[in-house]
This record gives sequence, structure tokens and C-alpha cells, in this order.
Amino acid sequence: MIKVVLIGSGNVAQHLIQVFLQAKEVALVQAVARNPRPLAALLPMDKITNDYQKITEADVYIIAVSDDAIAEVAVQLPFNNRLVVHTSGSSDISVLQDNNRKGVFYPLQTFTKGKAIDFAKIPICIEAENEIDYQLLEKLGHSISQKVVSITSEQRKSLHVAAVFVCNFVNHMYHMGHEICEKNDIPFEVLHPLIQETAHKIMTLSPEEAQTGPAVRHDSKTIEKHLNFLEDSNDKQLYQLLTQSIQYVKKL
Amino acid sequence: MIKVVLIGSGNVAQHLIQVFLQAKEVALVQAVARNPRPLAALLPMDKITNDYQKITEADVYIIAVSDDAIAEVAVQLPFNNRLVVHTSGSSDISVLQDNNRKGVFYPLQTFTKGKAIDFAKIPICIEAENEIDYQLLEKLGHSISQKVVSITSEQRKSLHVAAVFVCNFVNHMYHMGHEICEKNDIPFEVLHPLIQETAHKIMTLSPEEAQTGPAVRHDSKTIEKHLNFLEDSNDKQLYQLLTQSIQYVKKL
Repeated sequence: MIKVVLIGSGNVAQHLIQVFLQAKEVALVQAVARNPRPLAALLPMDKITNDYQKITEADVYIIAVSDDAIAEVAVQLPFNNRLVVHTSGSSDISVLQDNNRKGVFYPLQTFTKGKAIDFAKIPICIEAENEIDYQLLEKLGHSISQKVVSITSEQRKSLHVAAVFVCNFVNHMYHMGHEICEKNDIPFEVLHPLIQETAHKIMTLSPEEAQTGPAVRHDSKTIEKHLNFLEDSNDKQLYQLLTQSIQYVKKL
Repeated sequence: MIKVVLIGSGNVAQHLIQVFLQAKEVALVQAVARNPRPLAALLPMDKITNDYQKITEADVYIIAVSDDAIAEVAVQLPFNNRLVVHTSGSSDISVLQDNNRKGVFYPLQTFTKGKAIDFAKIPICIEAENEIDYQLLEKLGHSISQKVVSITSEQRKSLHVAAVFVCNFVNHMYHMGHEICEKNDIPFEVLHPLIQETAHKIMTLSPEEAQTGPAVRHDSKTIEKHLNFLEDSNDKQLYQLLTQSIQYVKKL
């Protein structure tokens, strides 16, 4: 049984609490939050505290707060030489305090409030300073997910940039499509199957193999038509730069 | 029974032949192709011709060739007043000849050679010049798909631009992520669940509601870190423009 204390009350914290409560090999012994209210529906009140002095003993302390607050929280922990990890994709392991053993437990997923997540398929990216702590995090990861990956702080930095491209920027492309549909009285649902197929394709093909469309075909007639169609100068610029960027890849 | 003659031998033509052969309400009476070889595995040779003079009688003639070749094919059809449609997302209905009744039968999907497609979920966007032809195309559409949508040539133009954003440009974002992973020895599979979840999210949330990440949070510290991380000046420019574009949306 791995005894876990979870610190935080936001999106990631709430999702982790829910999944740890269901994990057989995990005992979620306590949650620590400045504002315990968002956790009241998930845990009995005697398991929640906002007082760092009342923090319970555990095998691992998981700090699931916003990136900026991690260091601030770590410094308040009133103990030494215990395993303390954060859950951030963009923070170095070194933002944690040296008086405790440091680690990272980063579930690579986009968490939306209120939307249930199947943790079993979420890669848990872990990092630790020594083998024993690594093994504990690995076991903890496997208690909620089929996929646990060793990722160094250096790799995690790059992974976070990659995630911005394949998640946030992709979602912005969906927004562009959504907007064009709305302006032209087309239900956005018409594009859903294309969106799903595009996402499924790269499970079996590399993105380069999967690429189609006017840019990769160097179909300048269609590209010009599309640029004329886009009225907003920012949208035009975006279309142009993305087209260039696709053509630049294929030239390499 | 709807009698169909299909003209073309490329990707879309092959996929349509396969699905029409399975459709109960459709009789695929003939395929016409300059080069019949790619079709030989799909149809008996006596159902394939490369001679427009030998074209069979049918309820609808579907021209599934590249955009540039549609007009050229339409002009060679040796008959009048029959229903002739093309399958292109970016061509106007008017590229077809006036001596026949015109229409469009556009399956909105990205077709990859050799990758099977479940047509049942592909929206078929149809357009016709009169109600009877429209009804025939609607019936034909429903014989292979659950979703048939009326889309005018004007709407189709905009839909094609939207499709470039949500398919080709999205795929390019996958490429960017893929490249970053490769350079840093991270298996791209680590990003698969994030990619799938991002695509699933917009089935229930609008892209604006679904947006997360440093751009929408105006997290300039992380944005700067990411820009420093990206070495290629084109990649930097792309990251910057996409970030601006996301922030521009939220300001509206």
C-alpha cells in the first residue's frame, strides 16, 4: 500500500484524488488545500486540511498546484528527507526543496473541469533522484495507468513544447474551422469525422506520411483561392505561414 | 436500385467503388478510367472501360478525379440531360457541363491509400439543381452513410478552407510534436492519448471552451521558455503567430 498525501485543489488535484481513491494499491491518507471547498465532494472533511503543521506521514507527497506555486508550497512542508514530487510538465525537478527527496509525477493529459478522464491510458512521466524513489513512483504510476515512462527534466521541457503543438495549437485549428463553419451556416459536426480520422491516422502513420491537402501538393491555385476567402489579415497570415511550414518539411 | 457509373481510378474513386459494391440499394454498373489497372482488383474487367463511347446508361455518373481534370472529363461524356456529379470539395458545381444535369456528391473525409474507411460516419455533402436529382443523391448518400448534408457550392468553398485547418494544419502540428519528440529521444506514442483526447473534447465542448495552455493563460514566462527552446526561426515564428492568434480570439 502506497500512502499518498495530495496537495492542491485544482483540476489536476481533483482528478488525481478521484483516481487514487479507486486505486487498490494506494491509500490517499490526506489532501492539503488552502481552500478545501472544491474537495468537499470528493473526500470526508477529516481527510482535508489547510494547515501544513497537521500534515500526515506518507510515502509520497504530491504537489498538484499551478507551476508558479510549487516552490512556495514545497518550502512550507514541515519535514525532511521524505519523497516530494510535483505534477507539472513545465517545471524542473529542482523547483522542489533540497531538504526532501525530489521527484516528478506528470500525467501527460489535458484536464477539463468536470470531464471524466480514463487514467488507464494516460502516460505518467516520472523522474526521481534515486532508484528506490523511482520504483515507488513507477508502482504508483502503474496503480492508475498502463503506461509509465521515464522522462528527465530536460526531456520534459521538450515534451511540454510538443504538447502545446499537438494540443493547444491543434485546438486552435479546430477553433478556426469552427469559426468558418459558423460564419457560413454549416454545422461544425460535419467536420467531426474528419477531425477524428485525422487524429486516428497518426496512430499508424507518421504525420509526414499522413499529410494531404493543397500545401503538400503545392496546389497554388487552391491556396490562392483559400487566401482570398479568408478576410481577416491575421487568418491569412496564419494560413500562409502554416502552408509554408508544411512545404518546408517536405523539401528537407 | 440506383444505377451508378463511376469515373476515375484514384483514391476517392477506389474507396467509392468499394463502398458502392457493398451498398444494397446501389448497382455499380461500370467504372471508367484512362488507366484501369488500379481498379482491376476491385471489379471484373468487363465492368471497366477506358472508352467514353462505351459508357453505360445509369441514373448518376460520378466523376471522382482530381479537381483539375473534372471539366475535361465532363466535356467527353457522350450524352445529354443525365445526372452528372463530381466529388470535389473545392470545385464549383459549374465546372460540369450544361448539357447534363449537374450535382455534387462530396464525401468529407481524408482518404489515405490502403487505409480502410468506415463510410457510415462520413458526412456526404450533396448539391443538385433540382429537387428530383437532390432526392436521388440523398438516397445514394444514405445508402453508404448515416449523415447526408445539403451544402451549396458557396458553403462548400468555406467548408474546404475549414477542412484544411482541422485536417492538414492539425496534421502539421502533429508533425511539429513528432519532430520535437524524435530530437529528444521521446517516443511519439507518449503524445497519442493527448492527441486523441484533444480531438474527442471538441465533440462535446466548443474549441473556445476546450482551450488550455500557456497562450490562453497569457503565461508569458512559459511562452518565452518555449520560444527559447525552439531553435529553428520558422518554428519560433509559427509558435509566436499561433500564440497571438489564440490570444486574439479570447480578446474578442
